[in-house]
Amino acid sequence: MLNVGIIGASGYAGEELIEILLRHGSVRITYLAAKIDKPDNITKIFPKFKGRIDLPCEEPQLNKLLSRCDLVFLALPHTQSMYWVPRILEAGKKVIDLSADYRLKNISVYEAFYKTAHTDKANVKKAVYGLPELYRQEIRSADLIANPGCYPTAAILAIAPALVGDFIERDCIFIDAKSGASGAGRKIIQELTFTEVNENLKAYKINTHQHMPEIEQELSKIAHHLLKINFVPHLLAVNRGILETIYLKLKRPLTSKQVIDIYQRFYKKEPFIRILEEGNNPQLKDVIYTNFCDLGINVDKDRRALVLVCAIDNLQKGASGQAVQNMNIMYGFSETEGLL
Amino acid sequence: MLNVGIIGASGYAGEELIEILLRHGSVRITYLAAKIDKPDNITKIFPKFKGRIDLPCEEPQLNKLLSRCDLVFLALPHTQSMYWVPRILEAGKKVIDLSADYRLKNISVYEAFYKTAHTDKANVKKAVYGLPELYRQEIRSADLIANPGCYPTAAILAIAPALVGDFIERDCIFIDAKSGASGAGRKIIQELTFTEVNENLKAYKINTHQHMPEIEQELSKIAHHLLKINFVPHLLAVNRGILETIYLKLKRPLTSKQVIDIYQRFYKKEPFIRILEEGNNPQLKDVIYTNFCDLGINVDKDRRALVLVCAIDNLQKGASGQAVQNMNIMYGFSETEGLL
Amino acid sequence: MLNVGIIGASGYAGEELIEILLRHGSVRITYLAAKIDKPDNITKIFPKFKGRIDLPCEEPQLNKLLSRCDLVFLALPHTQSMYWVPRILEAGKKVIDLSADYRLKNISVYEAFYKTAHTDKANVKKAVYGLPELYRQEIRSADLIANPGCYPTAAILAIAPALVGDFIERDCIFIDAKSGASGAGRKIIQELTFTEVNENLKAYKINTHQHMPEIEQELSKIAHHLLKINFVPHLLAVNRGILETIYLKLKRPLTSKQVIDIYQRFYKKEPFIRILEEGNNPQLKDVIYTNFCDLGINVDKDRRALVLVCAIDNLQKGASGQAVQNMNIMYGFSETEGLL
Amino acid sequence: MLNVGIIGASGYAGEELIEILLRHGSVRITYLAAKIDKPDNITKIFPKFKGRIDLPCEEPQLNKLLSRCDLVFLALPHTQSMYWVPRILEAGKKVIDLSADYRLKNISVYEAFYKTAHTDKANVKKAVYGLPELYRQEIRSADLIANPGCYPTAAILAIAPALVGDFIERDCIFIDAKSGASGAGRKIIQELTFTEVNENLKAYKINTHQHMPEIEQELSKIAHHLLKINFVPHLLAVNRGILETIYLKLKRPLTSKQVIDIYQRFYKKEPFIRILEEGNNPQLKDVIYTNFCDLGINVDKDRRALVLVCAIDNLQKGASGQAVQNMNIMYGFSETEGLL
Repeated sequence: MLNVGIIGASGYAGEELIEILLRHGSVRITYLAAKIDKPDNITKIFPKFKGRIDLPCEEPQLNKLLSRCDLVFLALPHTQSMYWVPRILEAGKKVIDLSADYRLKNISVYEAFYKTAHTDKANVKKAVYGLPELYRQEIRSADLIANPGCYPTAAILAIAPALVGDFIERDCIFIDAKSGASGAGRKIIQELTFTEVNENLKAYKINTHQHMPEIEQELSKIAHHLLKINFVPHLLAVNRGILETIYLKLKRPLTSKQVIDIYQRFYKKEPFIRILEEGNNPQLKDVIYTNFCDLGINVDKDRRALVLVCAIDNLQKGASGQAVQNMNIMYGFSETEGLL
Repeated sequence: MLNVGIIGASGYAGEELIEILLRHGSVRITYLAAKIDKPDNITKIFPKFKGRIDLPCEEPQLNKLLSRCDLVFLALPHTQSMYWVPRILEAGKKVIDLSADYRLKNISVYEAFYKTAHTDKANVKKAVYGLPELYRQEIRSADLIANPGCYPTAAILAIAPALVGDFIERDCIFIDAKSGASGAGRKIIQELTFTEVNENLKAYKINTHQHMPEIEQELSKIAHHLLKINFVPHLLAVNRGILETIYLKLKRPLTSKQVIDIYQRFYKKEPFIRILEEGNNPQLKDVIYTNFCDLGINVDKDRRALVLVCAIDNLQKGASGQAVQNMNIMYGFSETEGLL
Repeated sequence: MLNVGIIGASGYAGEELIEILLRHGSVRITYLAAKIDKPDNITKIFPKFKGRIDLPCEEPQLNKLLSRCDLVFLALPHTQSMYWVPRILEAGKKVIDLSADYRLKNISVYEAFYKTAHTDKANVKKAVYGLPELYRQEIRSADLIANPGCYPTAAILAIAPALVGDFIERDCIFIDAKSGASGAGRKIIQELTFTEVNENLKAYKINTHQHMPEIEQELSKIAHHLLKINFVPHLLAVNRGILETIYLKLKRPLTSKQVIDIYQRFYKKEPFIRILEEGNNPQLKDVIYTNFCDLGINVDKDRRALVLVCAIDNLQKGASGQAVQNMNIMYGFSETEGLL
Repeated sequence: MLNVGIIGASGYAGEELIEILLRHGSVRITYLAAKIDKPDNITKIFPKFKGRIDLPCEEPQLNKLLSRCDLVFLALPHTQSMYWVPRILEAGKKVIDLSADYRLKNISVYEAFYKTAHTDKANVKKAVYGLPELYRQEIRSADLIANPGCYPTAAILAIAPALVGDFIERDCIFIDAKSGASGAGRKIIQELTFTEVNENLKAYKINTHQHMPEIEQELSKIAHHLLKINFVPHLLAVNRGILETIYLKLKRPLTSKQVIDIYQRFYKKEPFIRILEEGNNPQLKDVIYTNFCDLGINVDKDRRALVLVCAIDNLQKGASGQAVQNMNIMYGFSETEGLL
């Protein structure tokens, strides 16, 4: 049994990690911590866990953390992980960081978008971007995983095969992303109160969202070319789920069927990628509470357009599910353990 | 007092028409009809009207209709209006048709998208497309108004000034549209049951929706050029409202401020168009239950992109509110009467 | 034209007051104030009012208030109105207070439930409880209206006729109340964030809610007897509306029809009370965005039970709509002006 | 591995059974059937199962059913199970019936509430009411389980200990029940369309719901006395979950703490019953997607009232979860297998 700890256990990603790990056959949760006023049993913070786990959640302490865990999940707000990561790695333990602190290789881009100085540049280089479908090999031997953002997970998985196949125009990429409210984290602000979100829809951070450079970094790497994408997120009146509708222009005439074939070959052995048949497109309800990524592929010949629709659960494949998938790869567990 | 009747009073557009007309100072509802099993007071169909109106809703009969009304609103499913329109016009009465039957000037396009033969081609030519911001002059003297579709209203109002100003690339128009469930009408199908729509989001009829040719017809007219647009609607888990995020490429460098200026001049005197200030974008909650159309304008210099965000209430500006606005223009009432 | 001001214009009750007053033919909004960091146009706080009103919303100042308004609506959190009321009354102006500060005649009950000392006991005596259906005569000549709470409005209107008719057991009154999230005001707390409220339901403040003594006070007055009721509110995942299901025991055998007759006679001339026919019961969707109170009446002979179901909009009949109804009575306007 | 089949696999209870059984370590789904136009893979009916199960769902055929399954779950609409049960039992197989067909021991009550003649009276007597907390012993050796209704599960579990302890008045039981829309099944009717249910709440079948006699039967058995209860269900705008608020009168003075102690002792060894601490009450979000039943207990001394709040997931503990719990007991599996 692997002993794992979670710092940031009181947020939505932390909650989902606990939920998944409780069903995992080879793991034991041994330490829970979060920024909280006073330590309390995790079942007081999330009453739904009553009868399933009995563990305090306290202010994080390095000693306890290191003595109790082999692997640490950091489910912290951005800019806080870089305090913990060097300390944990130094002690020879492994880390899966769900924040953005180790995702962007270009430090100045990180500092511009997250509005803070980076204090652990050395480890940024070592960090492996934890998207198993693209980096499984590197993940296997990694000590530090930069777990991808929720929006980037869907965007990259959807667009990567088209860039590898080199059949889309690289200067015409529009991502219209829609996310449920848990994507914003467990923040207490006016914009996230029920009466503001319910029966509402809005776009926000148009082409200025912090996930845009993350998508650009990864897609540029795949395209061997510096890409500029357009990324417009929207806040949906649902609890969970991300649906991205992606507008691309084909460089050469291809049918829906041909593109679907290319994608099915690309993701042939992937346990969590489901390429839908021609004429079908994903919906949130088929992926929420799962680690699946569903992809619909639509070519319009007259318009030379390729419209991709991609759906994931922002808390599973977009955060904690993917984190556990990474753990499974790192430790040689079955990749789907705890996730099906 | 103008005597008006509604055929199709039992649907959502009919309900909204009653709601608006009950607050209108110069109009009296004198006739209500719908396809229903047995005639019943409208307050049995919509209990919310109890104490505000007391009128039967019965199977439509031409005699009664003509004897009681000066103006008829047709809030019928597509393909049914073309039965009524010639009969009403012949009797010298006026019609505002909320269906698609008289919107598409190209009959073969209509027949392809609505899968039925058109039986009243003569009147299609006479019909005025009832978008006051573009056709106010023609509306004033019209006998037959083809009231625009909900998605087209938002799309055309958003894109028209850019085409008139000729500063966007005409072969790169992507409309990502999201609509509340009332947009589908009061149909009883599996896809519209609560548990299917709630906590869900999906795209549908990707580049095949019947509103696409309507948008193309109107935008092509404005551009003096045959346009092909991309139009992808989504079904939102809210009751009302449409939000369209529109992706365009600028032909020449313009700032957000410059584009906003152009739009503000274009819609200067319009009582229902609100161009938002730089950095602001619309949300459903500010337009639902109103006849306003809110527009946000965002230029990304690096990407040479223009992202427009447009919000309306599908039942008001997207249907019944716009129908009343058209009536107000036709009869010389204040254009905002009943709508503010 | 009557000049009115609103203190507390930035909350939900304030927003709804503006909405209603903008449609009122005999009133002009001349002053808006609220506890806000810096004064700003009300359209910045509520963008939905853009194009309909153009007025700053600033920190309240007594001089400005008194010089600009004949009537002041206080839409403030509880315990703040008692600062303003004496100052406004002293200047000879009238006040409609939407808070609880002047509702409870027993000061010690107020102080126990609202956990603060009352600083304006003198005016508590003068205040008229603004439930038009019971106190229309007193409202006509009142200077200070204590506008009823949302839950009490529904509960009192539902139970009053049964107590006047003296056909229910007075020691067996159970009120199961359900309210949309706007009922909690525009507070920013964890419990009211979208992901906490959505897809959820919970009871709260079981038999300890501050509206319980208000209901007991009013029902006791009607019954000429000190009543103890049971009151359990629930937080619903909807924006607006209150539905109360009320469980009573009949003292003598009566049929549903007989009880409905009694209620219809009791509320015969009331423009906003709708007693539903036998077998029908109210639903939120028929009353939200209206000032109506819908009542369903159900007798179960075998169980000697009377089950009442009462629905109102918490922001209209439960707050701002009722406040305007009170204003209409005080100033001799048509009682339904602005409210239909 | 136990081979199980599901008839009625295309409804919500069937869907949830598949979901749970796919995570069960000792069971293999070998047969799926439902009333459908043409046989299709279950992943076409529920795309969310793609990649997890690959089995056709066809019109039920007795031969296939019997040859492939040891145990059959019937997740059929009421009145259809009584066709299948005798045929399956005769073949020596076991049945867990999720419908109401075998729950009511009094046939005439069944026939009155379900408006159909019962055609398999003999097996009604044999059927064991599948509420493990009350009938675990009988379930162990049962061939036919009448799986309890969703509302009755919550009501009986909440009230049983109070009747056994004999400290409540038996003629004063009011159950205010609220259920998410999946409780109505996967029906396609106007009342269950999104726009009718969303932002709405209503009571229905006041003291006439078919679950009322089921609750009365079971509570009467416990009380050794013919009980008449009041039962009022409400339709909530959420997908899943039941919350019941139950109003009782205490026969003798007890504190909340004392009642909680009694309940904790009563349900001491139960893996799925969680008695909350004093001052705490359940909410839907803590039980949905789980098989737990959460209970809050509130005594009001002044009012001699006991208010119980009980929450379950209608599709888990209220249907398919409980069915699997029953299976686990019947076959000697761990009782929580597949359910935690």
